[in-house]
Amino acid sequence: MKVGMFQTPFVAPERSPKQVFDWAVRQAIVAEEAGFTEYWIGEHGTLNWEGIPSPELVIAAVASQTKRIKLGPLAHLLPYHHPATLAVQTAWMSQILQGRYMLGVATGAYPTDAALRGITDMSQNHKMMLEAIDIMQRVWKAQPFEFQGEFWKAGYPNQEGKKPLRDIRPYGGNMPMAMTGLSAPSPSIAFAAKNGYIPASVYAGNDFLRSHFDSYAKISAENGRNSDRSMHRVVRDVFIADTDAEAKRIAINCGLGRAWKEYLLPTYQRFGVLKGLLRNPSDDPESVDVNYLADHVWIVGSPETVREKFEKWFDDLGGPFGTILIYSHDFIDDPRPWEESMHRLATEVAPRLK
Amino acid sequence: MKVGMFQTPFVAPERSPKQVFDWAVRQAIVAEEAGFTEYWIGEHGTLNWEGIPSPELVIAAVASQTKRIKLGPLAHLLPYHHPATLAVQTAWMSQILQGRYMLGVATGAYPTDAALRGITDMSQNHKMMLEAIDIMQRVWKAQPFEFQGEFWKAGYPNQEGKKPLRDIRPYGGNMPMAMTGLSAPSPSIAFAAKNGYIPASVYAGNDFLRSHFDSYAKISAENGRNSDRSMHRVVRDVFIADTDAEAKRIAINCGLGRAWKEYLLPTYQRFGVLKGLLRNPSDDPESVDVNYLADHVWIVGSPETVREKFEKWFDDLGGPFGTILIYSHDFIDDPRPWEESMHRLATEVAPRLK
Repeated sequence: MKVGMFQTPFVAPERSPKQVFDWAVRQAIVAEEAGFTEYWIGEHGTLNWEGIPSPELVIAAVASQTKRIKLGPLAHLLPYHHPATLAVQTAWMSQILQGRYMLGVATGAYPTDAALRGITDMSQNHKMMLEAIDIMQRVWKAQPFEFQGEFWKAGYPNQEGKKPLRDIRPYGGNMPMAMTGLSAPSPSIAFAAKNGYIPASVYAGNDFLRSHFDSYAKISAENGRNSDRSMHRVVRDVFIADTDAEAKRIAINCGLGRAWKEYLLPTYQRFGVLKGLLRNPSDDPESVDVNYLADHVWIVGSPETVREKFEKWFDDLGGPFGTILIYSHDFIDDPRPWEESMHRLATEVAPRLK
Repeated sequence: MKVGMFQTPFVAPERSPKQVFDWAVRQAIVAEEAGFTEYWIGEHGTLNWEGIPSPELVIAAVASQTKRIKLGPLAHLLPYHHPATLAVQTAWMSQILQGRYMLGVATGAYPTDAALRGITDMSQNHKMMLEAIDIMQRVWKAQPFEFQGEFWKAGYPNQEGKKPLRDIRPYGGNMPMAMTGLSAPSPSIAFAAKNGYIPASVYAGNDFLRSHFDSYAKISAENGRNSDRSMHRVVRDVFIADTDAEAKRIAINCGLGRAWKEYLLPTYQRFGVLKGLLRNPSDDPESVDVNYLADHVWIVGSPETVREKFEKWFDDLGGPFGTILIYSHDFIDDPRPWEESMHRLATEVAPRLK
C-alpha cells in the first residue's frame, strides 16, 4: 500500500489565505520527505472549510520545491473554467512536473461555487463537464479544429507554413485523469472506469468501497481495460502517536477532531452517507461523535495498533488497495505530532503491512 | 527611479516548459535579492517566444520564496478566462501576498491565443474585457448579485442566515490594476488613466512615451484623479557589464540579442511601431539590427555609461518616471553576466541617478 495525502484543505475558517497556502505547501514538502507518493488538492471558490480556490497555485509552489511526489488537483470543477484555458494550464503544469502531474476532474457539488458562475440550475453541470473534457482532449492533441459546443467555443489554429506554436500537449502526450466517488453506486467511479481514470473513493464504509472496487473492475472489463485494486485510492483519516491513548486524545482535540465536528459530520449528513460509517447498521447516527469516530471510523492508535487496524480492514475488504490518501488537517499551531504521524504511517506502518 | 522586471518570457523556443518555469522563478528571486521592487509576468496560451500560459503559476511559486518584491500578471488576457473564476483566483493570490500583488489586464492581441478559445473575430475582445472587469469587480465586493452578460453569467449567493463563506475579497479590499500601452495614442493608457490603473509603457521611442505621460495625466485629471510620473512604468532593455565594449558584445551575442533578432524586431514591425525606435526619423528601418539596437535602443554599457544614458533619457523626457521595467532574457546557460547586470542596475545605477 502506498501512502498519499488529500489536502482539501480542512483548515479552520479563521486561518488567513496565507496560512492556508503556506500550510498546503509545507504539507506537500513534508509528505515527500516522509515518502508519500502523491498529494492531491481540492478546489472550491467559496467554501470556508475547503478554502483553496485554485489548487494549481499550490501545485506550482510545490513543483519548485519537490522532486518525487506526484501532484494533482482533486478536483478541478470543470463547469467553472474555460476548458481550453484550463487545458493549456494543466498541460503546462504536467510539462513542468515531467510526469508528476495528475488531473482530477469533477462537476462541482456546492451551490455557492456554482452561484459564483451564475449557475443556479446545477443539473447542467454534468453535461458541462462532459463538454469540457471533450474540449480539453481536443486542445491537448494540438491539431487544428473548430468546436462550437452548447457551453463553450474552442479551437486550434491551422498554422501550416506559419511560425510554430508552443507545444501545448501534456507531458508524454497523455494526461492522467482522476475522479472521486462518495456515494454507492457511484456514477463518478463508473465514469472513471469507463474512461480509464484513477478512482479515488472517499471512505464511507466498507460496503461502499466494495461497491466501488467491483463496479470499477466490471466497467473497466466491459471497456476492454484491465484493472486491479492497485489503481484505487481510498481517502480515510489516520493518526498515529506513541500510544493508543495519546493518539486518540490528540486526534479528538486537534484539527482532525474539529474538522469532523464542525464540517465533516454535517457534510456526511447532508450528502446522506453517514450511515455507511456506522460500525453496526443498528447504531444511532445521532450517537456518532468524535469519540465514536476515533474508535470506529478514523484509524487511530500506536504504530502497532494502526498496522493491525489496516490488516483487519484489508481482510474485511478481501484484500488491500493501491494507495491510502489521508486528509490533511489543521495542525498549523503545532505541526509536530501531525508530521510525526505522517512519517510513521509511511515508514513504520505501510511497509510492514502483510 | 525604481527597478522592476517584465518576464514576458523571452526565453528561446527550444527551452522546455520546466526550463521556462524554473528560470522565471529564479529571476524573481534574484530580482528581489538585487532590490527590484516588482516583477511582472506575461500570459500567452500558444506563443513559443512568450511561452508562459499561466503567469499565476509562476507567481504562486515565487510567493512562497520571496518576501518583499511585488508580483503581478502583465497581463491576464480577460476574454480567455471565466471572469468569476479569475476574480477568485487573483483575489486569493492577493490575499496570500498581502499587498504584494498587482493585476495587469489586457484584451489579447494574438490570433492564435484567441483561436484556442474559438474566437476568430477579435473585434469583440475589447467588449469582452470590459464585461470581464465588470464581473470581477462585482465578485470582489462579495455582495449578492446575479449578472447575465453578453459573454458570461456570474453571481454571488445570498447567504443571509446561512453558513459563512470564505472571504473572496482582494487583500485590503481593493485590487491594484495595471495595463500596458504600446501604440501612441494608446487606448490602453487612456483606459488605465480613466480607471486609475497603473500604466506600463513598452518603450517605442520618446515621442510615444511623452504621449503616454501626457494623456495619462490629462485623462486622470478629467476623472478627478491626481497623477504624477511616479505611477509610470516603462519597459526597456538594459544591460551592464564592466566596460562598454564588453556590455555590447554580451548583449548582442546572448539572449537579449537573439530575442530581438528572432522575435522582437519582427513583432515591432508587425505592430507598426518600429519607426519610433529610430534615432533619427530619416534612418532606414531596414538598417535596424542588433548593432543599431545596442547603440540606440537598448541601454547598454558600463555602470557609468548606463547612468549617463539614463540621465540623458530623462532630460529628453522632461524628467524621470517611476519604475524602469527591464525585460528578462534567456541567459539560462550562463546566468552570471545577466544577474550581475541586474544587481548593478539596482545597486550602482538607479540609486545614483540625479
